Amino acid sequence: MCGIFAYLNYRIPKTRRHILETLIKGLQRLEYRGYDSAGVAIDAPSKGAHENGKQICVVKQQGKVEVLAEKLRGMAEFDFNDEMLCHVGIAHTRWATHGVPNEVNSHPQRSDPENEFVVVHNGIVTNYKALKKLLEGKGFKFESETDTEVIPKMLKYLHQQPDAKDISFSTLVERVVKELEGAFAIVVKSVHFPGEVVATKRGSPLLIGVACSGELSTDIIPIRYCKSISEGDHSKVVPQNNPLGSLHPVDVECGVEYYFASDASAIVEHTRRVIFVEDDDVAAVSGGHLSLHRVCRGPGQDCRALQTLEMELQQIVKGSYNSYMQKEIFEQPDSVLNTMRGRLKFESNIVMLGGLKDHVKVIKRCRRLILIGCGTSYHAALATRQVLEELSELPVMVELASDFLDRHTPVFRDDVCFFISQSGETADTLMALHFCKENGALTVGVTNTVGSSISRVTECGIHINAGPEIGVASTKAYTSQVVALVMFALFMSEDRISMTQRRKEIFKGLEELPDQIRKVLQIDSDVKELAGEMYKQLSLLIMGRGYNYATCLEGALKIKEITYMHSEGILSGELKHGPLALIDDKMPVIMIIPRDGTYTKCHNALKQVTARRGLPVVLCEENDKETISLAFKALLLPSTVDCLQGILAVIPLQLLSLHIANLRNMDVDCPRNLAKSVTVE
Amino acid sequence: MCGIFAYLNYRIPKTRRHILETLIKGLQRLEYRGYDSAGVAIDAPSKGAHENGKQICVVKQQGKVEVLAEKLRGMAEFDFNDEMLCHVGIAHTRWATHGVPNEVNSHPQRSDPENEFVVVHNGIVTNYKALKKLLEGKGFKFESETDTEVIPKMLKYLHQQPDAKDISFSTLVERVVKELEGAFAIVVKSVHFPGEVVATKRGSPLLIGVACSGELSTDIIPIRYCKSISEGDHSKVVPQNNPLGSLHPVDVECGVEYYFASDASAIVEHTRRVIFVEDDDVAAVSGGHLSLHRVCRGPGQDCRALQTLEMELQQIVKGSYNSYMQKEIFEQPDSVLNTMRGRLKFESNIVMLGGLKDHVKVIKRCRRLILIGCGTSYHAALATRQVLEELSELPVMVELASDFLDRHTPVFRDDVCFFISQSGETADTLMALHFCKENGALTVGVTNTVGSSISRVTECGIHINAGPEIGVASTKAYTSQVVALVMFALFMSEDRISMTQRRKEIFKGLEELPDQIRKVLQIDSDVKELAGEMYKQLSLLIMGRGYNYATCLEGALKIKEITYMHSEGILSGELKHGPLALIDDKMPVIMIIPRDGTYTKCHNALKQVTARRGLPVVLCEENDKETISLAFKALLLPSTVDCLQGILAVIPLQLLSLHIANLRNMDVDCPRNLAKSVTVE
Repeated sequence: MCGIFAYLNYRIPKTRRHILETLIKGLQRLEYRGYDSAGVAIDAPSKGAHENGKQICVVKQQGKVEVLAEKLRGMAEFDFNDEMLCHVGIAHTRWATHGVPNEVNSHPQRSDPENEFVVVHNGIVTNYKALKKLLEGKGFKFESETDTEVIPKMLKYLHQQPDAKDISFSTLVERVVKELEGAFAIVVKSVHFPGEVVATKRGSPLLIGVACSGELSTDIIPIRYCKSISEGDHSKVVPQNNPLGSLHPVDVECGVEYYFASDASAIVEHTRRVIFVEDDDVAAVSGGHLSLHRVCRGPGQDCRALQTLEMELQQIVKGSYNSYMQKEIFEQPDSVLNTMRGRLKFESNIVMLGGLKDHVKVIKRCRRLILIGCGTSYHAALATRQVLEELSELPVMVELASDFLDRHTPVFRDDVCFFISQSGETADTLMALHFCKENGALTVGVTNTVGSSISRVTECGIHINAGPEIGVASTKAYTSQVVALVMFALFMSEDRISMTQRRKEIFKGLEELPDQIRKVLQIDSDVKELAGEMYKQLSLLIMGRGYNYATCLEGALKIKEITYMHSEGILSGELKHGPLALIDDKMPVIMIIPRDGTYTKCHNALKQVTARRGLPVVLCEENDKETISLAFKALLLPSTVDCLQGILAVIPLQLLSLHIANLRNMDVDCPRNLAKSVTVE
Repeated sequence: MCGIFAYLNYRIPKTRRHILETLIKGLQRLEYRGYDSAGVAIDAPSKGAHENGKQICVVKQQGKVEVLAEKLRGMAEFDFNDEMLCHVGIAHTRWATHGVPNEVNSHPQRSDPENEFVVVHNGIVTNYKALKKLLEGKGFKFESETDTEVIPKMLKYLHQQPDAKDISFSTLVERVVKELEGAFAIVVKSVHFPGEVVATKRGSPLLIGVACSGELSTDIIPIRYCKSISEGDHSKVVPQNNPLGSLHPVDVECGVEYYFASDASAIVEHTRRVIFVEDDDVAAVSGGHLSLHRVCRGPGQDCRALQTLEMELQQIVKGSYNSYMQKEIFEQPDSVLNTMRGRLKFESNIVMLGGLKDHVKVIKRCRRLILIGCGTSYHAALATRQVLEELSELPVMVELASDFLDRHTPVFRDDVCFFISQSGETADTLMALHFCKENGALTVGVTNTVGSSISRVTECGIHINAGPEIGVASTKAYTSQVVALVMFALFMSEDRISMTQRRKEIFKGLEELPDQIRKVLQIDSDVKELAGEMYKQLSLLIMGRGYNYATCLEGALKIKEITYMHSEGILSGELKHGPLALIDDKMPVIMIIPRDGTYTKCHNALKQVTARRGLPVVLCEENDKETISLAFKALLLPSTVDCLQGILAVIPLQLLSLHIANLRNMDVDCPRNLAKSVTVE
């Protein structure tokens, strides 16, 4: 939800055009996080250089980032060639949670009509009502319906207090943040602190890129904290013992650029050197120096290291595909290979999961596995539950993170809990992680984003290595999550003689998987034809059972997400307990019928559907003549081992959603109402 | 699925009219089990009394039982006043599984055009294809698409064999049944055995009512078994040591009537004395004597007792209501009271669950609770999972029976497994019960039907006492199941001082529940108005979380079942992970927003929906002005303790489904494609 981006140039002259283009490009990279409105704040044109930064100009626009860019290009009052030596620009692309998408609800939000303080925010301030009431009591007039607006107004209010006279920008922000509840990442700009920027986060992700042509003062930035924790005196922030106080160019004549963003994809084209901001860090740039502050010093909170991004720019551009989603679907032969790369030895049937090796014994001795996720990640857990139960012989619980939290589910010290999230930032999953850690369980992350909150907070984990996923509807992350969890199941059974044969089958299946996915992608034109017949329908049911129950849910979710057709995944074992009433010769039905242990039961369901004059489209194995003969229409898949068949079966459903969305003229990468990484509860 | 009924009169002269009316009445009572076609088989009119039973007449008809009754009334070849001293009539109401509903696929199915053997069958013969192939090889011509047809043909085939010359009807049936796989209850009639009937079952329910004006020979019917188990010689069935060989009137001049039916509701108006047939029992009546046979003698298989039904006839008639479903919805103040009656002491906050008392210690010391059910019963488990986790402090798993079986879920000796089923006959749940028993877990039944398979096979249980439920869409059974499981949660925490206050709240909630349900039923007219606005819609989403996630699923299921509208229950915590894409100003949305621990999060979801111009109808507490002010429309509920709020919230959804179905002119008690008790996998 929401993407935030900021750009600061210090002692490197940049034209207004360059600054605005940088902000717009940053927002476009983040657009998958939300795109119902966007806005920027930059310094207003001034009469002389000494007046720079004395006034802030805010431009906002409902709609996608491109609409904002158009509006900016047409602004007559801007001299686009005007050069600025030191400047801060902040920008935002929104996904509405509080207040409908319109211009006034867009960010940056401001303290007053003079724009003294402007803020971009990702997340939800849960106690905004109380703060709003307080500030209204002090005479502040609110203009938007957002929760965010309390932040700039609070900044202005505290800045007006007598005791705030000489305090720094970062201390001021710290004082405000102390009052906020909820999850957020914010970047703040103010006329009172020209050329400065402050950013902080709690729960939502934020990172800072640093670009400098000269040498930097340090690779390790020490954290400044309040001298006396007990006093909690926020005004006197003094540097820590570490002699290196902040990050800056060694040569004072050398300029530096800073990029603040919700994720790495907006930064990688400018620089690979980044700092991941941790919860409650306050990062401030003043006079080109970046410093990090915290109110209290905690364990492991001494410093933050400059890290190097390993992402490639080409990974985040569409290339010849029409949409990121299409690109990512067709990348799956490679992405699942990357998930397995270096981890599976096919000649000896051995799995090496480096991220778990320090905790092998504890994991193998646990009493229960709990897999936790939301949306697609939850489906990946469901898809692998059976093979995990089989190979680990442990009870395996699969939980939706939000429900798990609502229920205050009992968790024990001998549980091992998995947290599955593509972005590694999903708010509910992250909260569940904190809950399980507090209860003493061993936590394992399964994410696609190195450096994400979940990968940092968990004790150990498996990185799925699928490469950046930009399409809002997750595709390649799903198949890689499934492969990663199947590898974990193999890892749990490596010492079992009785499972040798079964493991061999699965290893063989994994080895052949990339080629088989390639084969499935070849039925794209058949799927397109099917989409042509279906796209005007209002409802769609997708049925299966066993390993493929998750496939049905995931397929239905894709279709919901990007086509807005009411599709539902149904366990075919539950058909007779209600959903069969929906079946007639009009309701479109897709049934997944693999030749595994559920084959006979799937055929019972198929017969029940045809007995009610349903016209089922069947996904089955290519040599399964019996099923083909009973189906209204069949899409044929290569055969693999039961626990991997779902990977092959989900791909035609991904393609189907894509084609239906195209036929309905929907923007596949920007489904209405949705955003990629859900960083609010 | 499917109801079977048979009537045998022995030495009590009955007219053909009486016999047909008895068969039709029996089918009407069973119609909720299936109603897409029906049929009867009786003796054909004969020239003289000695010719009686020499020919069988089969009458079948697509459609409801009433259509068959019409057809019978119009049959000119019948002399309805013709009296028969001894006669067997069998009847069937079908719910199609194999083959579309039409006349030829209806039951009774026959061995040949001469109707030598006719069979009514409830269940699925899973190996019918192999048997069909075999019989076709022997020259048999199949006319229907049913699995059932192999049974009469097999009977005829075996009857033609040289070694079958002198064997009894029951032995012949035993030989056939030995070849069948799957679940079934069958009743067989044959021209070769006039005045005799044989019935047997495996998995599907069957009971026999006995009506006799004189004294009966015994109350305990011994089971006859093959002399030599090792030889497995089916032809020589000899009586057991027990001197009392069979059930019959003591006075040889006294007549007797037998009723065979899939459940008690078809029998209770004729007699209260019944025998529950167990799996693999073969029951045969010959010369007015009822005997029970088994191939092998197993532990506890020595005899079957005559039992007395406690059901009242008035419980199974509609009275002044338009449908059974409506009657059952409005019965809920009483049915939940009956569930609690005698079990809760409100003055001392004590729970007494007599059905569990012999296993208290084992249950309290278990490591894990597993709740297993299908459809509505699964929802009852979900609805109470959180309070069970809270009060028992144990891990609680909730499983769909079919998925649980598909996954071969690991079950351990220290698990306690609950099997929830209104009828106590649900095939998947029953199979899961057998699976858990084999794995050594303690099994607990939660059913509404005394004497049902689940209540007999489980070690202990809670009978929900909701009274017979006839409406196919379960309503009062759901609320009573929830109450029963909440009582169990209280039972698990009775020794905990720290929970005293919490328990008190729940006791208070339970005490007030019947009156509060009465209050909720008063908003029926508001719900009807809402139904008027909604009934033309094609889709409906119902959202909630926490305790009310189950309420949403259950509400959506009711609407699916009886209105055929595509409704879906959605966890509002998952909204942002996909379903929000469906929201616009046209999609009907119902949101359940109780004032419990999820209130703030529910409000976040509400705001997300309204931010997307959704028009949510809200179910909330009557004094919750904030929610009412944000809703497009609100239905108001009394407030109760969090874990019982779902009982009050589900009732408007039950009513909504009823009104929408009425407005759409659907038959509420006979939803298309569905049947009440699902006795096939």
